[in-house]
Amino acid sequence: MRHLRILIEYDGSEFHGWQRQPGLRTVQGTLEEAIQTMTGETVAIRGAGRTDAGVHAAGQVASFALAAEIPEAGLLRGLNSFLPHDIAILDVREVPSDFDARFSARGKVYRYRIWNHLVRSPLHARAAWHCRSVLDLAAMRQAAAQLCGEHDFRAFRAADCERRTTVRIIRRLDIDRQGALVTIDVEATAFLKNMVRILVGTLVDLGRGKLTADAIDHMLRTGDRAAGGITAPPQGLTLLRVSY
Amino acid sequence: MRHLRILIEYDGSEFHGWQRQPGLRTVQGTLEEAIQTMTGETVAIRGAGRTDAGVHAAGQVASFALAAEIPEAGLLRGLNSFLPHDIAILDVREVPSDFDARFSARGKVYRYRIWNHLVRSPLHARAAWHCRSVLDLAAMRQAAAQLCGEHDFRAFRAADCERRTTVRIIRRLDIDRQGALVTIDVEATAFLKNMVRILVGTLVDLGRGKLTADAIDHMLRTGDRAAGGITAPPQGLTLLRVSY
Repeated sequence: MRHLRILIEYDGSEFHGWQRQPGLRTVQGTLEEAIQTMTGETVAIRGAGRTDAGVHAAGQVASFALAAEIPEAGLLRGLNSFLPHDIAILDVREVPSDFDARFSARGKVYRYRIWNHLVRSPLHARAAWHCRSVLDLAAMRQAAAQLCGEHDFRAFRAADCERRTTVRIIRRLDIDRQGALVTIDVEATAFLKNMVRILVGTLVDLGRGKLTADAIDHMLRTGDRAAGGITAPPQGLTLLRVSY
Repeated sequence: MRHLRILIEYDGSEFHGWQRQPGLRTVQGTLEEAIQTMTGETVAIRGAGRTDAGVHAAGQVASFALAAEIPEAGLLRGLNSFLPHDIAILDVREVPSDFDARFSARGKVYRYRIWNHLVRSPLHARAAWHCRSVLDLAAMRQAAAQLCGEHDFRAFRAADCERRTTVRIIRRLDIDRQGALVTIDVEATAFLKNMVRILVGTLVDLGRGKLTADAIDHMLRTGDRAAGGITAPPQGLTLLRVSY
């Protein structure tokens, strides 16, 4: 058996998320089907990040074992020919047998895009959240600075998140504006379920004055999810890259 | 009657172009329907650029006359609520009665996007042309410099283009690369039918070595369309702005 690592890009709009689910169109399911169609082998692939429905990826990573002796370049070209228009494999490489796309990951970078304008943008609708209120980026950056570093992020996870430990390290949280497009990049060792979307929803509520500056400190100290903002919608989020 | 000028953004993917056509979903038809639904008035709007099917716009301009005394802000908000997700009005303003979005235009800027990578990009598929061959940007820029200025562009128009005069002035033709994304910006006084798409197709054929450096000079001198490259596909093209 060879162990392979693939780099994947997808437009999440028409997928029910990463994880295989019977009867639903998912990224994992679509990839496993393409591998089976091409090689005849039934594989179970492991993804680095189990993205939600509607979330995109520019650099998702997955790993699987394959018996077929097809060269990497042949797999790359062949698998892409079996994949639909909204998903593509950018790279295929052989890895040691102990490589696991999920557990070997040392960090991930997510990008969240906000279209901050009175009028919605048809050209950004698929990959940005539309916020009408003018955002106070200075206030958001101040909050972002508080969130960086090692903290217990239990206030920043979905109610059904099953992770035991909720301490994570945010290495970088950059907020940028280019015209009406606000970009939030978050790099962390690992993320809890919906963590980026709750971080962004909370930062946006700070930026539009619905929350005050002490909200972050309170959330980090008490773990009180209710003190935060909404969970930002999925279409603004893209998994940019995974580091190993 | 008031004379109004609107600024429009649209994702052209699901439109049969700008121009109203019976039974087809077009940008002009969709805008005229929204105006009629909101005001009860049947108007004929004039667009600055009659974009083809699949071509996008970030700053299309149109003008029309309206009897209803609705303030600009009310029209902006109201019309957007009657428009589908892939089209939005960014601005509404009153203009003198002699303003005509098409004939008053003094220049236009179009952007063409090329995804220049071995593998197609699901995240750029709706708004870029996928070219696998590595493009020689130096050769393309040299050709672009030849195209700038006043020339007879009859070799760079669709066979069914009906314009009498084919002399145009290209003010700027910039080619840029950011990773796999190549961007071509063209600014001109006015354009012939399919002119940008034929310019881009010809530049790309130069960039991948299918045409030699003398092709541009030959085309400008003889008007020989056959000496040029293909007509680049519509989804890579966006009308960025119109100046008056």
